[in-house]
Amino acid sequence: MAKWLIKAKYIITLDEKDSVLEDGGLLIEDGILKKIGSYDEVAKFSSDNHKFIDRSDSIVMPGFINAHTHIPMNLLRGICDDQTLEVWLNDYIWKYEPRMTAEDSKTGTLLGCLELIENGVVGFIDQYFYVDEVAQSTDQTGLRALLCPGVFAPSAESKTIEESFDKAKEIIEKWTGKNKLLSFGLGPHAPYSVEKDMFDKLRQYAEEHNLPIHTHLSESKYEVAQAQEKWGMSPIERVYDLKFGSTPLLAAHCVHLDDNDRKLLKEMNATVLSNPQSNLKIASGIADVPKMLDAGINVALGTDGTASNNNLDMLEEIRLTALIHKGIHYDPRLIPATVALRMGTINGRKAMGLDSDGLVEEAAADIIFFDLSATSNNPCINPVSNIVYSTSSRDITDVMVDGKWLYFNKEHKTLDKKAIIEKANSITKRILSQGIIE
Amino acid sequence: MAKWLIKAKYIITLDEKDSVLEDGGLLIEDGILKKIGSYDEVAKFSSDNHKFIDRSDSIVMPGFINAHTHIPMNLLRGICDDQTLEVWLNDYIWKYEPRMTAEDSKTGTLLGCLELIENGVVGFIDQYFYVDEVAQSTDQTGLRALLCPGVFAPSAESKTIEESFDKAKEIIEKWTGKNKLLSFGLGPHAPYSVEKDMFDKLRQYAEEHNLPIHTHLSESKYEVAQAQEKWGMSPIERVYDLKFGSTPLLAAHCVHLDDNDRKLLKEMNATVLSNPQSNLKIASGIADVPKMLDAGINVALGTDGTASNNNLDMLEEIRLTALIHKGIHYDPRLIPATVALRMGTINGRKAMGLDSDGLVEEAAADIIFFDLSATSNNPCINPVSNIVYSTSSRDITDVMVDGKWLYFNKEHKTLDKKAIIEKANSITKRILSQGIIE
Repeated sequence: MAKWLIKAKYIITLDEKDSVLEDGGLLIEDGILKKIGSYDEVAKFSSDNHKFIDRSDSIVMPGFINAHTHIPMNLLRGICDDQTLEVWLNDYIWKYEPRMTAEDSKTGTLLGCLELIENGVVGFIDQYFYVDEVAQSTDQTGLRALLCPGVFAPSAESKTIEESFDKAKEIIEKWTGKNKLLSFGLGPHAPYSVEKDMFDKLRQYAEEHNLPIHTHLSESKYEVAQAQEKWGMSPIERVYDLKFGSTPLLAAHCVHLDDNDRKLLKEMNATVLSNPQSNLKIASGIADVPKMLDAGINVALGTDGTASNNNLDMLEEIRLTALIHKGIHYDPRLIPATVALRMGTINGRKAMGLDSDGLVEEAAADIIFFDLSATSNNPCINPVSNIVYSTSSRDITDVMVDGKWLYFNKEHKTLDKKAIIEKANSITKRILSQGIIE
Repeated sequence: MAKWLIKAKYIITLDEKDSVLEDGGLLIEDGILKKIGSYDEVAKFSSDNHKFIDRSDSIVMPGFINAHTHIPMNLLRGICDDQTLEVWLNDYIWKYEPRMTAEDSKTGTLLGCLELIENGVVGFIDQYFYVDEVAQSTDQTGLRALLCPGVFAPSAESKTIEESFDKAKEIIEKWTGKNKLLSFGLGPHAPYSVEKDMFDKLRQYAEEHNLPIHTHLSESKYEVAQAQEKWGMSPIERVYDLKFGSTPLLAAHCVHLDDNDRKLLKEMNATVLSNPQSNLKIASGIADVPKMLDAGINVALGTDGTASNNNLDMLEEIRLTALIHKGIHYDPRLIPATVALRMGTINGRKAMGLDSDGLVEEAAADIIFFDLSATSNNPCINPVSNIVYSTSSRDITDVMVDGKWLYFNKEHKTLDKKAIIEKANSITKRILSQGIIE
C-alpha cells in the first residue's frame, strides 16, 4: 500500500483543541495517519518510499460524513418540488420509485457516490431497499458506508415486512466481513410503519450481532401527534419503551422533540442524524439543534435522499446549520463554525463507529483538500471560517479514504463519471417515459 | 461588436409564461437578444457574421443580480464570525475597516467582481464609501452596477455627513454618462444614522436628478424599537413620512415589518433588497418574504457584504429563500423554485431600472450558462429545479453581459484573477498586521 508525505498550507485537525496548523505536514502509511505536525518536523520521518504531494495552496481537513441518505434515489433528483407531502408521495415517489429495478439501483448508487466523492464525503450512512445492490456498487467506490437495509413493506423489493426483515438479515450475513470499509445495521423505517413484534425481533437480532439501528423519528408534527394518539407517547418515548439503545441508535430527523425526548435520546446514547435542508424543503420544520447539543446528544448531519434535497452537498448542510439557529434565536453565537464542522465530520464518524478524535496520529487517513486559490477562499483570514461560511464543495480538489485517492486534482480514481451519468440518465428516462405512456 | 449564434440544451427564459425551451437557440447582436426560440428556427436568421457557440450540454438563463453589496469589504472576508453585533462592530469592523484606503478599495472591488462574475452575477447594487474608486474598478470588469455612494459619517472617507453628501454628488456628477453599464443612486445609510434635514436634501437632489435611493430599513428588532421610541413610528413609516418613493426606493433588509409597513412599501413602489444569509448570520432574523410577495412588493435578493455572509454566491441566497419559508410555515408550496429564481434575476433588474421581461427579443444579452455534465445536474428531469435545488454556482461556465463574454469556459476575459487575488491578500495582511502591532 502506498505511503504519502503531504504538505498543506493549513490543516484543520478537529482534534480535542480544534488545532489549525499552518504549513503543516501529514505522513500516511497503510491507510493510517502516522505523523501530523509542522511540515518540517513531519518530513524528517519520511523516506524514499513516501510519495510527496504538494498541497501548499490547500486546506486539508477530515472528510465529511453524510449521515443520512437513500442513495439510489439519485435517479429521481428533482422529480417533484414545492408540493404537499401527499402529492409528492402519491403522484411521484410511490408512482415512480417502484419502477426502479434492483439493477437500476446499482447505477443510482454509483451516481450518488460520484456526487458524494465530489462533495468531499468519505463515508455515508444509508437506509433503503436493494441493499445488496447498494453494497455491490459502494464496494467499487472506495467509500466507507454504514448500510442499513430498510425494514419496510410493501417496497419494490418486499411484499411483507417479514420478507423485508429476512432480506435484511440475508444481506447482512452475506456482506459482513467482505470489505472493511462497509459495515451494516438494521433500518426499520419508523415506529409508525413497523409494529411492536417486528421491532422486538429486530432489536434482538441487532443485540445478537451488535448492529446499529437506523430509524426515522419525529420528522413531522403529524407523526408526533399520531404517536400520541396511538400509544399515548412520542415516537422517542415509543422506541425507549421498546428498549432501544441496547445497540447504537441512529435517529434520523428528530425535528419535533420536547425536553423529555432529548433526555431519553441522551440516555439511549443515540446519535441524531439531522437533515436541515430536507426538513425545510418538505416543510417538516427546523430541528432545535442547539438544545440537542445542550442536552449532550451527538448530532451528525446528512442530506437525506435527493428526492427531497435535491443534492448530496454536505457543506450546504453544515453552512445552513451554522446559520439558521442564529437567525431564529437572534443569537449570532449559536453553533459556531467549528461546532458545525464537527457535526459534518467527527460526529458522523462516531455514528459510524469510526475513530473520531480528528486528524491525530493513528487516525484513518480520510481527508479532503480545499483549493486556496479559489476566489471565495481569499483572503483567508481564518480557514475554518472560509470553509464553513464562504467556499463551495466544488473547491474540493482531492479526497482520500483509508489512504487511497478516490478523487485527485478533481478526477475520479475509482469511478467512470461519464459512463455512470450516461447510464443513469437513460434509466431515469425509462422510468419517466413508462409514466407517460401509462 | 460581435454577433453570436448560441445553441443550448435548455433555455430558462423567465418570460411571462416562465417558458423553458429545449434544444433552444439565441441570436445576439450589439449586446441585444435578437432572436430566441428553437435552435433550428433561430439558426435560419444567422449569417456568416455570427460566431457559433455550442452549448448543447448547458442550461442558459438570465444572469443573477446581486441586489445589495458593500463590495470593497471582500478584503475583510471572515474577519469575525459567531460574535454579537457589538463585538463584530467594535472589535473588528470599526477597527479594521478604517485602515482600508481608497486605493485598497479598488482592489477590494476587483476581488468582489471576480467573485460576482464566477457566481453568474451580471449586475449588482452597491452601497459603500470610496465609490469613485469602486466605479473605476467596476468600469474595467464589464459588469452592470448601480452604485450608491453611502451618505454616512464618520467614515474613512468623510468626517461629517455634509462632506459625505458632497462627495456623493461629486462622484455622481463625475461618472454620469461615462459607462452605460454603470448607473448611480444615493445611499443614505439608514433613518437612524441620517437626520431629517439631510434626508430632505437627499430626496430633493434625487428628485432633481431622478436617482434611486438605497437605504437600510428595519434590519433588526432593536432598530425598529428605537425608531418607535424616537419618532413614534417604524423606520418604514419614517421614510414614508419623509416623502420617500418619489424616486425609486431600494429598501435593504426589511426583516421586521408589520402589515402597515408592507402597505407603505407597496405604496412607495419600493423594491425590498432581501439578504437572507446575512440576516441569519448576524442574527437579525428572517424576513417574511411570502407576506411581502402577497402584498405585491418587488423583492430582489442580495448577499450583503462578505463581512457578514461571507461570500457573494447568489445561488445560495436563491436556494435559501426557496427553502426556509417552507420549513418555518410548514408549507412546501411557499416560494416555488421559479419565484425564487425570479427574485435573484428579474426582480433585481427591475430594481436597477433594466429590462425585466426575461429572455425575450430585444432584451439585453445578460446571460449565464450552467454545465449539464456536472454530477449534481444529473438526471435533469426539470432544469429549473436543478438550478434552484441542486447545482452549484461553480457549475457556471460562462457569463455574458451586454453581449460580451466576461467569463468563458471558466476563464475570466476582463480580469487578471491571479494578480487581483495576490494584491488583495497583501492588502488584507497589511490591514491585519497593523492591528497586531497596535
